[in-house]
Amino acid sequence: MKRITLAHGGGGRVTRNLLKDIFYPLLDNEYLRGETDAAVLPASDRPLAFTTDAHVVNPLFFPGGDIGRLAVYGTANDLAVMGAEPQYLTLGCIIEEGMPVDDLKRVVASIADAARDANVKVVAGDTKVVGTGAADGLFLCSAGVGTLLPHAPSGAQTIQPSDAVIVSGPIGDHGATIFAARQSGMHIDVISDCAPIFPLVQAAMKASSQIRVMRDPTRGGLGAALNEFIENGSVSIELNAGAIPVRPAVQSLCDLMGFEPMHLACEGRLVIIVAAEDAEAVLQALRSVKGGESAAIIGRVDTAHPGMVYQRTPVGGKRIVDMPSGELLPRIC
Amino acid sequence: MKRITLAHGGGGRVTRNLLKDIFYPLLDNEYLRGETDAAVLPASDRPLAFTTDAHVVNPLFFPGGDIGRLAVYGTANDLAVMGAEPQYLTLGCIIEEGMPVDDLKRVVASIADAARDANVKVVAGDTKVVGTGAADGLFLCSAGVGTLLPHAPSGAQTIQPSDAVIVSGPIGDHGATIFAARQSGMHIDVISDCAPIFPLVQAAMKASSQIRVMRDPTRGGLGAALNEFIENGSVSIELNAGAIPVRPAVQSLCDLMGFEPMHLACEGRLVIIVAAEDAEAVLQALRSVKGGESAAIIGRVDTAHPGMVYQRTPVGGKRIVDMPSGELLPRIC
Repeated sequence: MKRITLAHGGGGRVTRNLLKDIFYPLLDNEYLRGETDAAVLPASDRPLAFTTDAHVVNPLFFPGGDIGRLAVYGTANDLAVMGAEPQYLTLGCIIEEGMPVDDLKRVVASIADAARDANVKVVAGDTKVVGTGAADGLFLCSAGVGTLLPHAPSGAQTIQPSDAVIVSGPIGDHGATIFAARQSGMHIDVISDCAPIFPLVQAAMKASSQIRVMRDPTRGGLGAALNEFIENGSVSIELNAGAIPVRPAVQSLCDLMGFEPMHLACEGRLVIIVAAEDAEAVLQALRSVKGGESAAIIGRVDTAHPGMVYQRTPVGGKRIVDMPSGELLPRIC
Repeated sequence: MKRITLAHGGGGRVTRNLLKDIFYPLLDNEYLRGETDAAVLPASDRPLAFTTDAHVVNPLFFPGGDIGRLAVYGTANDLAVMGAEPQYLTLGCIIEEGMPVDDLKRVVASIADAARDANVKVVAGDTKVVGTGAADGLFLCSAGVGTLLPHAPSGAQTIQPSDAVIVSGPIGDHGATIFAARQSGMHIDVISDCAPIFPLVQAAMKASSQIRVMRDPTRGGLGAALNEFIENGSVSIELNAGAIPVRPAVQSLCDLMGFEPMHLACEGRLVIIVAAEDAEAVLQALRSVKGGESAAIIGRVDTAHPGMVYQRTPVGGKRIVDMPSGELLPRIC
């Protein structure tokens, strides 16, 4: 068996073999072992967070990660930003006929690795195979549940003037990496930031019980995340452009291509809006965690331009940081 | 906006508009309204069932249903057969650039309809767009959670000799419908059986606390489901071929094409293995529920051929009902 065939998706013996040879051994845990139609999870006396992500990144493997790692971290991170501890994932695989089995194994091994890293278990899944040309290699859909921690963020609607905006590290690494990986001959000195952010979330929540909202700024980047926070509200966000961490390689790529770093996807960063008096404590907490060393306070909430994110220009003007529009970079996650 | 564009998947303003114009209004509920990264579900003092399905059916619309209906029922049914009440779903959409927006609307409206029908809520989702030719129209991934009912089935490993095998209605309707829908000029007098089976499950569980295992026989059909139940055990299943409900139109198609009805997918049937003394009560309970009118006892567990499903032929021989192997019908669900 070198390549995936339509028979791998038929539901018969060949499908069973695919599961038994690749998925079950690599992802092994007590929930999968039952081979039932659904995993049975223990009851919890805390509310649950429940989310899903579809992943269509192109290429499947890129510097710093691959589609499997993205799927696990992406879903775990969506739970984490709600103030929940990620616990269980499911996995839906749509595989194109002809995919090399070794590539599939590599992705599943990476999923297993990422799951250990993020301290979650893949407890159920489904595999489908579509004909040559009917999917572009491999699409992954992950869903996740996690238990809400006490003092979960109070929500974007509770954002107040003077609140601080904090980001946990350099922005745009993932988007820049994927863009460069697609251009033949282009190499930039950056790798995807894809990583689990629950340790950062946990540290921040320990440092403050006044976190308004958190997000991992993926598609649409930091710009989209901040705009979504305040789009229907009476407040605005003033960013301090000089404080926003951007790697030189990412900035150069953006200058060259006309991209805005704030619109490039991150896959392992955390943006937090928190009450002003707790900002410094949250900042220090983030900096003490691996991956949060270059966390920075990048802006403040005010009421100058309700519903808008803006930054002051060096000459004293104001520039709107809009929600990205148009095509951006497709298939980055 | 007539057709889906790559910009609909970029994560910026156009993606937001797609969500706000189509997904949020049609699927509206209190969980989606928050527009958060994950839905927060109330705590439950019962264990949870958690499952996922990837749907790649071709064509997207078929007599009796469409990909949206399949996604909702398929996931709800996987929860139901574990003895869980389906409650919450998530939805991952992978849309091909160029898909007519009206088709997408029709699918989402159908999802909304099916969710009401199955008494579940779509609480979170994700949409991605891939380039023309990179996906075949639309793929849907659904995940679901539900609360385990008391006296959930004890599991395939508890199947015992003399247990009865019951099926809730005619088999193969979905597989036959999809096959016919793909052949230009072929029309058969059957529609997909896709439907929620929780009402059947509930009736059966009320009638017996000795249900060993339940399944909705989808890919691979009844043949695959029964083989999986006993594959590693010390028991066998003797089927009474004459008792298995198969519609004449499905049987004719199978005779014509060389298919085995037991290998064709169902999307709204329930197969149950239950202690012999409760078989009649479960049968009557199923027959009293809409969709279960033609439920039948179709076989018995014995020890004649451990690990095998077989049936007696009219001339007194025995014929193995194997796990389907090879290509079968791809993209039926």
